Amino acid sequence: MASLPKDTLHFPAEHRPFLEPHLPPKDLLSVKDPFPFTTVTFATSLDSQLALSPGAPTKLSGPQSKAMTHYLRSRYDAILIGVGTAAADNPSLNCRIEGVGGYGGQGLEGQPRPIIIDPAARWDFTANQKIFQLARNGQGRAPYIITGLANPPLDKKAILDEAGGKFITVEFTTTGFNDHKVDWKDVLKALSVEGLRSVMIEGGGTVINSLLQPENFSVINSVVVTIAPTWLGTGGVVVSPPRRINDEGKPMAAVRLDHVEWHPFGEDVVLCGKVKI
Amino acid sequence: MASLPKDTLHFPAEHRPFLEPHLPPKDLLSVKDPFPFTTVTFATSLDSQLALSPGAPTKLSGPQSKAMTHYLRSRYDAILIGVGTAAADNPSLNCRIEGVGGYGGQGLEGQPRPIIIDPAARWDFTANQKIFQLARNGQGRAPYIITGLANPPLDKKAILDEAGGKFITVEFTTTGFNDHKVDWKDVLKALSVEGLRSVMIEGGGTVINSLLQPENFSVINSVVVTIAPTWLGTGGVVVSPPRRINDEGKPMAAVRLDHVEWHPFGEDVVLCGKVKI
Repeated sequence: MASLPKDTLHFPAEHRPFLEPHLPPKDLLSVKDPFPFTTVTFATSLDSQLALSPGAPTKLSGPQSKAMTHYLRSRYDAILIGVGTAAADNPSLNCRIEGVGGYGGQGLEGQPRPIIIDPAARWDFTANQKIFQLARNGQGRAPYIITGLANPPLDKKAILDEAGGKFITVEFTTTGFNDHKVDWKDVLKALSVEGLRSVMIEGGGTVINSLLQPENFSVINSVVVTIAPTWLGTGGVVVSPPRRINDEGKPMAAVRLDHVEWHPFGEDVVLCGKVKI
Repeated sequence: MASLPKDTLHFPAEHRPFLEPHLPPKDLLSVKDPFPFTTVTFATSLDSQLALSPGAPTKLSGPQSKAMTHYLRSRYDAILIGVGTAAADNPSLNCRIEGVGGYGGQGLEGQPRPIIIDPAARWDFTANQKIFQLARNGQGRAPYIITGLANPPLDKKAILDEAGGKFITVEFTTTGFNDHKVDWKDVLKALSVEGLRSVMIEGGGTVINSLLQPENFSVINSVVVTIAPTWLGTGGVVVSPPRRINDEGKPMAAVRLDHVEWHPFGEDVVLCGKVKI
């Protein structure tokens, strides 16, 4: 076997069983559901923040959590983020766990397809970005970009085509400048059409807060949240879905989880659960 | 032994050891520190909210967490809240664990002294409020109210005197209408002067966010946070201390914890730790 890339990650076997009930079943190909198995997963501070500000590098969770995220990625056909995160982070969006393609494994086995939600195709990428470099190196897949544009820009389309990615057009409603609404079921159906039978939705705040709303509860199969023992303080990127109002006009909790398990993990804790419908 | 009050709570022995390192040491009387042993403790949602709105009854944590809070109260000389919580909640602020005074125990043993931070003495209480009823029944102590007024209202003073409570005057700076600042060290010293050698600070948001700031880190001995697997949604009472800026003018995490332990507890998790200075 060729030597492994230096940034290969290891996720010990003893930490895997607690995640298993919350991951896509291994016989997923036989499932007739029109939607992929969908998991929402992210890491926050105690004050429910993903980052100090949009795109700010924010060290939150420990090295074990990073390895866990990459292990999770190996278990999904696709991983999904919003354009804000893509534009700010120059993300790799691959899987670096030992044994997947490019990290000791065959071909692209275990490498998820990166999906970027970009309603107006504003992500201003070049072929030099990490995600395309990794695709060229056989260490990841090129992204599929979900856009509302019927005819996305040709220069970007060319970069995607070259790398093995593409634009996928889905109907968005534009409600203001840089404010676009999408029916998440349309996005998930579009992934299913591509043969992507499971998706891990990783962020950022806009994507997560939009997804954690009642009309989407039925298509969210599991939730995996890592919490770090830090308060970032006011002003960061907050996960907090819109307030809900009950039949009597009174405020009620936005999302409750059940089938809950907490797994202490280094300095952090990992919460697994399902959305209570 | 007389029969126990119906609302007596039980906190199983097997859940006590994990809390012990974060509680006041039992030989605290010998400590020469001018400040009491101070623990910050509260329960939040995943989005770091104490309640749907100020004073709104918000079911967050499970019955085990409630019993834990009362067990903790039995281990402190004093429990402290802000006037907002006192005014909104008509709180009991006693301890209902089996074995403390009024719940199977002798006299007022194990009953903490309620402390209410009320800079302008705006809490509009009567002798019929729960806290005074419990004091008359021998099931709790009358409150000490920390105020900035040199001469608090005589009618309120009379109710407090009758019950065995009092006003304690500490210097506050008024920075605007209903916006008062206090040096927490002055408050804690005032408690020490009263012989109160340990205090559990329970909320609400204003008190906690004001306390979790660098100038107070040295007087916070431990933190115990219960997190419930629920997002309340935007618009509630949020725990998130003010943003900090580092020497280079860049945002940094407001508070980090170390000596961290996570203890899954029913559907909730309990985080114990110390503020990293």
